[in-house]
Amino acid sequence: MKRRIRMGMVGGGPGAFIGGVHRMAARLDNKIELVCGAFSSNAEKSKLMSDELFLDPDRVYGSYWEMFSAEARLPVGERMDFVSIVTPNFAHFEVAKAALEHGFHVVCDKPMTMTVAEAKVLAALVDKTKLEFCLTHNYTGYPMVKQAKEMIAAGKLGAIRKVVSEYPQGWLATSLESQKQVWRTDPAKSGISCCIGDIGTHAENIAEYVTGLKIAELCADLTSFVPGRTLDDDGNILVRFDNGARGVIYASQVSVGEENALNIRVYGDKGGLEWSQQEPNTLIVKWNDRPSEIYRTGWAGNGENAGRNTRTPAGHPEGFIEAFANLYSNFADVVAARLDNVDPAKIRRDFPGVHDGVRGVAFIQNVVDSSDAHGWVKFTL
Amino acid sequence: MKRRIRMGMVGGGPGAFIGGVHRMAARLDNKIELVCGAFSSNAEKSKLMSDELFLDPDRVYGSYWEMFSAEARLPVGERMDFVSIVTPNFAHFEVAKAALEHGFHVVCDKPMTMTVAEAKVLAALVDKTKLEFCLTHNYTGYPMVKQAKEMIAAGKLGAIRKVVSEYPQGWLATSLESQKQVWRTDPAKSGISCCIGDIGTHAENIAEYVTGLKIAELCADLTSFVPGRTLDDDGNILVRFDNGARGVIYASQVSVGEENALNIRVYGDKGGLEWSQQEPNTLIVKWNDRPSEIYRTGWAGNGENAGRNTRTPAGHPEGFIEAFANLYSNFADVVAARLDNVDPAKIRRDFPGVHDGVRGVAFIQNVVDSSDAHGWVKFTL
Amino acid sequence: MKRRIRMGMVGGGPGAFIGGVHRMAARLDNKIELVCGAFSSNAEKSKLMSDELFLDPDRVYGSYWEMFSAEARLPVGERMDFVSIVTPNFAHFEVAKAALEHGFHVVCDKPMTMTVAEAKVLAALVDKTKLEFCLTHNYTGYPMVKQAKEMIAAGKLGAIRKVVSEYPQGWLATSLESQKQVWRTDPAKSGISCCIGDIGTHAENIAEYVTGLKIAELCADLTSFVPGRTLDDDGNILVRFDNGARGVIYASQVSVGEENALNIRVYGDKGGLEWSQQEPNTLIVKWNDRPSEIYRTGWAGNGENAGRNTRTPAGHPEGFIEAFANLYSNFADVVAARLDNVDPAKIRRDFPGVHDGVRGVAFIQNVVDSSDAHGWVKFTL
Amino acid sequence: MKRRIRMGMVGGGPGAFIGGVHRMAARLDNKIELVCGAFSSNAEKSKLMSDELFLDPDRVYGSYWEMFSAEARLPVGERMDFVSIVTPNFAHFEVAKAALEHGFHVVCDKPMTMTVAEAKVLAALVDKTKLEFCLTHNYTGYPMVKQAKEMIAAGKLGAIRKVVSEYPQGWLATSLESQKQVWRTDPAKSGISCCIGDIGTHAENIAEYVTGLKIAELCADLTSFVPGRTLDDDGNILVRFDNGARGVIYASQVSVGEENALNIRVYGDKGGLEWSQQEPNTLIVKWNDRPSEIYRTGWAGNGENAGRNTRTPAGHPEGFIEAFANLYSNFADVVAARLDNVDPAKIRRDFPGVHDGVRGVAFIQNVVDSSDAHGWVKFTL
Repeated sequence: MKRRIRMGMVGGGPGAFIGGVHRMAARLDNKIELVCGAFSSNAEKSKLMSDELFLDPDRVYGSYWEMFSAEARLPVGERMDFVSIVTPNFAHFEVAKAALEHGFHVVCDKPMTMTVAEAKVLAALVDKTKLEFCLTHNYTGYPMVKQAKEMIAAGKLGAIRKVVSEYPQGWLATSLESQKQVWRTDPAKSGISCCIGDIGTHAENIAEYVTGLKIAELCADLTSFVPGRTLDDDGNILVRFDNGARGVIYASQVSVGEENALNIRVYGDKGGLEWSQQEPNTLIVKWNDRPSEIYRTGWAGNGENAGRNTRTPAGHPEGFIEAFANLYSNFADVVAARLDNVDPAKIRRDFPGVHDGVRGVAFIQNVVDSSDAHGWVKFTL
Repeated sequence: MKRRIRMGMVGGGPGAFIGGVHRMAARLDNKIELVCGAFSSNAEKSKLMSDELFLDPDRVYGSYWEMFSAEARLPVGERMDFVSIVTPNFAHFEVAKAALEHGFHVVCDKPMTMTVAEAKVLAALVDKTKLEFCLTHNYTGYPMVKQAKEMIAAGKLGAIRKVVSEYPQGWLATSLESQKQVWRTDPAKSGISCCIGDIGTHAENIAEYVTGLKIAELCADLTSFVPGRTLDDDGNILVRFDNGARGVIYASQVSVGEENALNIRVYGDKGGLEWSQQEPNTLIVKWNDRPSEIYRTGWAGNGENAGRNTRTPAGHPEGFIEAFANLYSNFADVVAARLDNVDPAKIRRDFPGVHDGVRGVAFIQNVVDSSDAHGWVKFTL
Repeated sequence: MKRRIRMGMVGGGPGAFIGGVHRMAARLDNKIELVCGAFSSNAEKSKLMSDELFLDPDRVYGSYWEMFSAEARLPVGERMDFVSIVTPNFAHFEVAKAALEHGFHVVCDKPMTMTVAEAKVLAALVDKTKLEFCLTHNYTGYPMVKQAKEMIAAGKLGAIRKVVSEYPQGWLATSLESQKQVWRTDPAKSGISCCIGDIGTHAENIAEYVTGLKIAELCADLTSFVPGRTLDDDGNILVRFDNGARGVIYASQVSVGEENALNIRVYGDKGGLEWSQQEPNTLIVKWNDRPSEIYRTGWAGNGENAGRNTRTPAGHPEGFIEAFANLYSNFADVVAARLDNVDPAKIRRDFPGVHDGVRGVAFIQNVVDSSDAHGWVKFTL
Repeated sequence: MKRRIRMGMVGGGPGAFIGGVHRMAARLDNKIELVCGAFSSNAEKSKLMSDELFLDPDRVYGSYWEMFSAEARLPVGERMDFVSIVTPNFAHFEVAKAALEHGFHVVCDKPMTMTVAEAKVLAALVDKTKLEFCLTHNYTGYPMVKQAKEMIAAGKLGAIRKVVSEYPQGWLATSLESQKQVWRTDPAKSGISCCIGDIGTHAENIAEYVTGLKIAELCADLTSFVPGRTLDDDGNILVRFDNGARGVIYASQVSVGEENALNIRVYGDKGGLEWSQQEPNTLIVKWNDRPSEIYRTGWAGNGENAGRNTRTPAGHPEGFIEAFANLYSNFADVVAARLDNVDPAKIRRDFPGVHDGVRGVAFIQNVVDSSDAHGWVKFTL
C-alpha cells in the first residue's frame, strides 16, 4: 500500500520566501503531508500559519523543542516522520541536532551550519543514528544536472580536466541592509560569509556532484563591494580537484542584472558539457570530432536517474519548484522504504546528504581562510 | 478564514498522463483538495486510484453520473465544489453538461467538445447557471504570456498588425496508431481533427488571448502525412483578425525533432514581441528605435497579472506545471470568492472560459471547412 | 597560372548601399578586379566614383551602353570579363540583356526583372549565348545553408514534408516614402510588389535551394499596412511543393524590431533542421530518436560544398559579406575555368542562376495573382 | 583625393592561415594595396606567392631585410607605407624592430615579442620614431566590443567592480605535436607560454580595452594537460584591477568542443554587460531596475566608434574578417592622415598599439611567474 510521509516544519513563518518553496516542493508529488510546524520563533506568528496551511492548531507549536517533544510522544503513523528546517542559517545546527536526537529524519536548508565543528557534530550524529538527512542543494534536483552526472560517471567525457562553476546574482549590488533580507548580510545570522555561504556553496556542491570529484586545494579572493557591508558580496576562486583537474568557481551578489545565473561547464579529455540553471531543461554536450548535442529534459534516451526525476515528456519545461520537489520526492521514497523495511539502497534515490553539508561548510571556511591569507590553501575538513 | 476548494475528477485513471498533470497543478498552491473521482469508465480501474491518491474509497465512484448524484447529496462544505474533466475529447461534452446540470463548477480539458453545437449548448448552460467554467488552455497561465497580454492591452505595441503563432511537435511523425496514443488519431474519440484539435487550438487560443483580437477569416491547408492516418497531422493557416491584422497559425505533429515548441510573435505599429513555450520565462519586446528588451518572469516591474501568477523571484524558472497551476489557482480563488459571497470581478483573476471553448471548437470546424473547400472562409461560430 | 577576373559595374554610385556590398564581396577573395563602371544614370555622379574606387577615369562611363560598347572593343585580357548589375529593379532587364548581347557574363541583383516575360527573355538569351549568369540570392552563399542543402540532398532528413521560410524586417513600419529608400515602395521602380519582391523572393529562393523542391501551388495574403503606400509591406503565403510537401513562406517589412531575420525550417520524415540568417554559423539538425545536433561553420566534418565556401576554422564567425563573396568567388572560378577552357562542371561551383531568377519573378507574379484572387493558384511560370 | 596605402608583408607564405586572414582584412575596404612581401624565410616559397597574389615578382623578396632595404630606396608613393608582420611569434621582434628602423609603420600579430625586454625595446622605438604601430588584437575590432567600451567610458555601467573574460578552445585537447601547428606548443617558437601567449593575451587585452582598467595583481594556475607537452594548454587567473575591481580571466586549449569562445562580462555598480565572440553582433546590457537590453551591430543609436566600425545595417552579420579589417581600416586612415599631414588625433581612429603589446607580453610573464610561485604577484611591466 502506498503511504504518505508526515512532515513537520521549523521556520517558514509569515512572509518567509524559502519556507513556501519548501512546502510547494513537498506537496507537488503527493508523497508528503505537512502535519505540524514551529514556523516562527515568535509563537504568535507561528500560530498564524495554522489557518494559512489548514493545519490542526494543536500541532502548530510555539517552538521546535516543544514540537519535537510533543510529536515524539505520538504514535508512529500519526507523528511527523521528518522535519524540514528552513530557518535562517544560524539556527540550522541546533534544530537539526535536536531533531536527530529526538529520532526524526531531517531535511535541512543550506549551508548546514555556521561552523565546520557543528557540521561534524551533525554528521557524526547522522552516522550514529542512521537517520536520513537531506540538505537542500536543490539545483542537483534538475533532471539535466543528473543527466550530466550520469554521463560523466559513465566515462562519456573521459577523464575530467576542467570545471567552471559560476553563480552570479545582482540583487545585493546596492545596500539593502535596512531591508528585510538583512539577515543574509548579518554575520550573526549568516555566518562568516554572505555570498559564498548563500550561493557559492551551491556552485561548489554542483561542481562536486556533477563530476564526482572533490576540491583538494583552492585560492580565493573575496570582496565586499557595497560600502558598510561587513561580509563578502563577491568571490572568485581557483580550484584544484583531487584527480588533478583544475577549475574556477565564482559567486557574486553584485553582478548587476543577473538573476540566479548558476551555470556549470565541465571538460574531460573526450568531451565537454554545459548547463545553465535559468534554462534548466537543456544540456549541451560537446565534442571535438562531431557536432555538439542538445540533451533535453524528458528525452526517452536520458539516463535512469534523470528519467526518474522528470514528470512530463520533453518540451514541457520543468522548473525550480520541480527540481526542489525532486529532493523531497527522493527523500520521501527513502523514508517510506525504511518505514516499509525496504533497504533504501535498492531504490537508488539520490539527494544531497550530511556529508555534502560538511564539505559545504568546510568550503566556506577554506575560502575565507584563503582569501584572508591571500594565497592558496589545501582544502581541509 | 482561508478555505480550500474541493475537487472531483472525471478521467485521469491509471496511466493517463494529463490527469496527473491536472492533479499536480491543482495541488501545488494548496488551494484545492481532491476529494472524489470517477477516474475511469472502468469501475475497477477507477477504484485503484483510491489507494494511489489517498482518497476515501467511498468517494471513488464507478461513473461520473454516480459521482455527481452522490456528491450533490452531500452538504456544501463536504461535497465537491467543482469537477475537473480530463477524459479523452469525446466525453467532455456529456460530462461537463451533467456537471453543470448538477450545479457543479467545471474545469475542462480542451478542445471543449466534439462539435460546435455541443459547445454552444455548454456555453448556454454556463450563461444560464452562472457556474464557473475553466477550459485548460494552460499556456495562457505563463506569467510572460500574461505580461504580453497586459503590454498589448495597454497599447505599448500600438495597433496590432501581424500575429504568428506556431505549435510544432514531432511525436506523430511515424505511425503510433498501434500504440496507446491511438485515441488522438481516432476520429471517434478525437473528433474531426487530430493536429488542429489537439494543439492547433492552443495556437489559436494564445493568439486571441494575447492580442485580444478575434479571427475573422481564415484559409487552411491540412495534411495527413503518415500513411494510414485519417486525421490531419499538420496544418498551415492564414488568418485575418477582426481589426484587420493578418497572420499565420500553424500546428504540426510531424515536425521531427520538435518537442512542444509553441511560440508566438506579435507586431504592432509601435513594437513587437516574441515568446516561446520551451523557454517560457523570457519575453522579448522589440522596438525600431531602441534596443530590444528582455522581460523576465519575476521582475518587479512586470504587470499586475503577470506578477500575481508568479511564485518566485526572477531567475527561478517556472515551468509547465506552474503555468497549469495558475489556471487552477485563479479558478479556485474565484470559486472561493463565490463561496464567500464576494464578487469575483473584484479579485480580477483570469482563466480561459466556456466562450473561449466555443471559439476553439469553431476554429477547428472552420479550419476543416476551409481546408476541404481549398480556400478562404469567414470565421463562423 | 592563376588569373583575376575583370569586373565592370552598372549602378552602385555615390550613396548606394548594395553597390558597396557587391564591391566588398567581389574584392574579398582577390579573384576579381574592378576595372570599369557606369555607376549612375547621371554621368557626373558616375565619374565621381573614379577617384572613390581608384579606377582609370577613362573606364568610368556615362552609361551602361557606352561601357558595353567600349569594353567590347578592348582585347580579351584587358576588357571586363563580366558585369555586375546593382541598379534598382526596373533597370535590371535592359542592362542584363544588353550585357548578354555584347557577350559579357553577368552578375545581377534580384529580383531579376520587373515581369515574367522579361525574365524569360533573359533566360532564353543565357541559354542561347551560354554565357554565365549569377543572380545574387546571396543568402544561399552561407556555408550552413549549403550544409543544409547537402544533408537534404543526401537523404539525411528523409522525404521532405514541411518547409517554413520567413523573412521579417521592421524598417518600413512607418512611412519612409519621403526618404531615400522611396524606390522600393514605388511601383515604377520596384515592380508589382515591394515586400515580396525585395525579400519574399529570398525566402522563396532559399526554400527551393535548400530542399531542391519546387513550389507547385500557393495561396497568398498581401497587405499594405502603412497609410499611403501602394505596394505590399507584408505577405503571408501557404505553399505546396511538387513532391507533396506543404509549407509557409512569409515576408514582412512592418515587423517592428526585426532586422533581417530570414530563417528556414525543414522537416522530413527522418529529421528536421533550422537555420537563421542573423546567427548564420549555426545549423540545428533535429531528430526524434537522438539529441539535436549543432552543426557549425568550419567544422571539419561538414559537406564538401559547405567546406569550400568557408574561409576560417570553426569559431571565427563568417558573416553577410563572406556569404555574398561566396557567390562572386564561385562565379569567378567558373568564368576563370571558361577562360582556361576548363569544363565548369568539373569544378562544381554553385551559384543561383537565370532560371532561379525566372522562378523568383514568377513567384512574385503568382503571389500577387493569388492575393488579388483571394485564393489558391497553381504556380505558373 | 583619396589614397590607398601600400602594404608589404612578412610571413604568410603558402599554407599559413593567419597570413591569408590579414590579407583579406587589408583588402576588404579598398584602403590598402599589397605591393610587396617576404612571405617565407624560404626564398623559393616566398617567390611562389607572387603568382598567388598577383604581385610584381621583383617585389617578392627573399628576406624581410632585403625587402626593407629595397623598399626604403623606392620613392614615397611607390614604396610600401607599412609592413604587416604575420610570422610565428619568435620572429615578431626582429622584424618589427628592423621595420621601424627603416622608417616603416608596422602592423604586427600578437603576442608582440617573446620577452618583456624586447617589447620595451619596440615601445621605445615607436615612441622615438613616432611611427604608427598596430598590434592585431583583432577582437577589439568588433563593433559591439567598441560599443561596450563606449558605454563603460561614458559611465553607463557606473564604477566597474567585476570583470570575467574567458577564451576557451578545444583543438589542443589531444596531442597535435606531430602536426603542422607544432610551433605553438614549441617553446623555441612560441615563447614561455602556449595557451596564455596565444589566446590568454586576447582575453587580457579585451578586458583592459573594454573597461579602460589595468590589471594590478594576479594569481595564475597554468596546466599542461596533454602528456608530452611542455607549455601550458590551460590557465585560470584571478585578477585585481587598478581601481579595485576584481575578476577572472581564463584561457584553455583543452576545453573539448569549444571553438573560439572568447567572451566577456563586465559589471559596474549601475549595470552589467555580456559579449561573446561567436555571436559578435549582440551585446546584452543588464540592469537591476529595468529589462536587459539587446544592443545589435548596425543599430542607428550605437556609439560613434561602434558606428564607424560597421559596414552594413543591423541584421547583416559582420564577422571575424570584418572585425580584423576594422584594425587595418583604422590603421590605414591614420597612415593616410599622416601622409596628408593631418593630425591623426582629429580623425579618432582606434587600434591596439605597442603599449598594449608591452602589457600583453608582461601579462604572459606575470602569469607564468605567478603560476610558478603558486601565489599572487603584483603586475609588473
